[in-house]
Amino acid sequence: MIATPYLLYLGHSNDEIGIKTSRGLAVFRPDICVGEFRHDDCGLTLNLPRMDFAAAYAAGARTLVLGIANAGGKLGEDLVQDALAAMEAGLDIASGLHQRLKDEPRLVEAAVRLGRALHDVRDPRPDIPVGNGKKRAGKRLLTVGTDCSVGKMYTTLCLARALAARGVPADFRATGQTGILIAGDGVPLDAVVADFISGAIEQISPDRHDAGWDLIEGQGSLFHPSFAGVSTGLLHGAQPDALVLCHDPLRRSMRGLPHYTPPGLADCLEANLRTARLTNPDVRVVGIALNTSAMDEADAIALCARTAQEFDLPCSDPYRMGVEAILDRLLESDAATAATATETV
Amino acid sequence: MIATPYLLYLGHSNDEIGIKTSRGLAVFRPDICVGEFRHDDCGLTLNLPRMDFAAAYAAGARTLVLGIANAGGKLGEDLVQDALAAMEAGLDIASGLHQRLKDEPRLVEAAVRLGRALHDVRDPRPDIPVGNGKKRAGKRLLTVGTDCSVGKMYTTLCLARALAARGVPADFRATGQTGILIAGDGVPLDAVVADFISGAIEQISPDRHDAGWDLIEGQGSLFHPSFAGVSTGLLHGAQPDALVLCHDPLRRSMRGLPHYTPPGLADCLEANLRTARLTNPDVRVVGIALNTSAMDEADAIALCARTAQEFDLPCSDPYRMGVEAILDRLLESDAATAATATETV
Repeated sequence: MIATPYLLYLGHSNDEIGIKTSRGLAVFRPDICVGEFRHDDCGLTLNLPRMDFAAAYAAGARTLVLGIANAGGKLGEDLVQDALAAMEAGLDIASGLHQRLKDEPRLVEAAVRLGRALHDVRDPRPDIPVGNGKKRAGKRLLTVGTDCSVGKMYTTLCLARALAARGVPADFRATGQTGILIAGDGVPLDAVVADFISGAIEQISPDRHDAGWDLIEGQGSLFHPSFAGVSTGLLHGAQPDALVLCHDPLRRSMRGLPHYTPPGLADCLEANLRTARLTNPDVRVVGIALNTSAMDEADAIALCARTAQEFDLPCSDPYRMGVEAILDRLLESDAATAATATETV
Repeated sequence: MIATPYLLYLGHSNDEIGIKTSRGLAVFRPDICVGEFRHDDCGLTLNLPRMDFAAAYAAGARTLVLGIANAGGKLGEDLVQDALAAMEAGLDIASGLHQRLKDEPRLVEAAVRLGRALHDVRDPRPDIPVGNGKKRAGKRLLTVGTDCSVGKMYTTLCLARALAARGVPADFRATGQTGILIAGDGVPLDAVVADFISGAIEQISPDRHDAGWDLIEGQGSLFHPSFAGVSTGLLHGAQPDALVLCHDPLRRSMRGLPHYTPPGLADCLEANLRTARLTNPDVRVVGIALNTSAMDEADAIALCARTAQEFDLPCSDPYRMGVEAILDRLLESDAATAATATETV
């Protein structure tokens, strides 16, 4: 539905976490990303060719993805001006911001006049049901986190790829705008009306009967005062058989809230298990994923080894070191469950 | 903004919990309710005069309040037909259902043609911020529950009245459609977009400096698989100093989910305290409110006494027995805190 390939927007950003949608697309869908757009004061790059809108269109780009995030998701004046210029140059616009493109009259006017499309990836589908907590067929893994933006989407995507590589049917279930742009489907969970959070997850991860796994992208954190409600509903709707805890070991305060410190891993594991047990009493933790992108390799490996030992769980940086140990644990417990089930029969 | 007095709608309802908005208005705002509208197959009454739309208009009614609830909040064909007839008879329409009056073309057409107003009480204001978890001045009490529809709004309203009667400044902060219709203000929390749940509560309960209390109406339950996300964000946004746990002792399964049993009071108290501590480490429980409306008086009193003893907390049915013991505990701990603060200074 969204015309590809993409030009990825960085704008004036100087906050690595703020460009995570653009970076996620560059990393996981390089095949559909022709370049990046950034202003001179932007200190970041995706290592794609830097292009203005006309050059991007000439190179084949058909949609400018406003792949930047900010608390509250406002559409600032700079974004509006850039989007207008991009449309003049021939590009459609896709956005994952809370504030909708279609609510900005200047963009709507330009889209109509120029025949361009405006895609608000954060508009949920209209038929989301209230959650019912009924046990569904099939197996589900959910990534949870000590904070927002600690690698839940990356971890989930790495797990989905690695499972598929082992020949196990595996589907990535996107719950955020980047994931949706990558997967082509999913639910923008933070934009769903509060009463329907768990129902939205039940809807995107229905019964499955092929012995495969749904890998559900987590959101927020039970310990984030702004977003824990989303994380709670997600845990209940996912009714996960397996959890992977994601963590940024260098994070000193909760994302956007300098007055809150991240929880310890043990507290976070326990809180997630306790919450998840409401809809799946058999939930287990099968691994810990650390985002070590800011650490050197020896330190990262040592930290993962120490963490694995402390919690008796496989631990790795999924993007840097792979997820094989976590998958071994996941499929081990899976096999054990199957064996028990067979014995019972 | 909504023209009074009201005609309260019962329609075809035979489920007492389904008419809680209409009943809440009849109980707490009898001064603005002239009658009830029900079809012949409706087995319930608010003990108000039964009126058709024309008679209600003649008796002074200006708005039909569609004060009934159903899972998902759909606007059924019967409601649409009744609302159309009411508009023809001269009445405006107010609704707390998820599905909006303004999204039903027949209602919009009739409203325009007849000059009537359509009020969707569940439309949140557009400027709700993301929560920040910062400590606010003033004191807050939040009602929490073992389930939905166990008396949180009644309890909160009783506490607000009783506090005011003792000369303590007290404001009821509504978070549901009935509460909003009663108080004339508040936030329809279950209709807020998921990322803004805690921020919505921070907004309706800002800093206060008059030594009074905000009494915040709870929603859902941490143990309800459909709605625990709402309850979690509400706990975090309220940053309550005091909790009152509300419970229906005769409830055998979670509201709308026959496959889920309600939690025990001890588990529920502990889970709410644990969740609330994220934004207020000093949170305390000051009482338990039982909805004993289906029990005889001796049994109700005995159960409250047993519960009080078991948990070392004041326990009553607020509507039936008052809330004086709970207020004593609340103001005691309040005085203790003030004394400690003075000593520290």
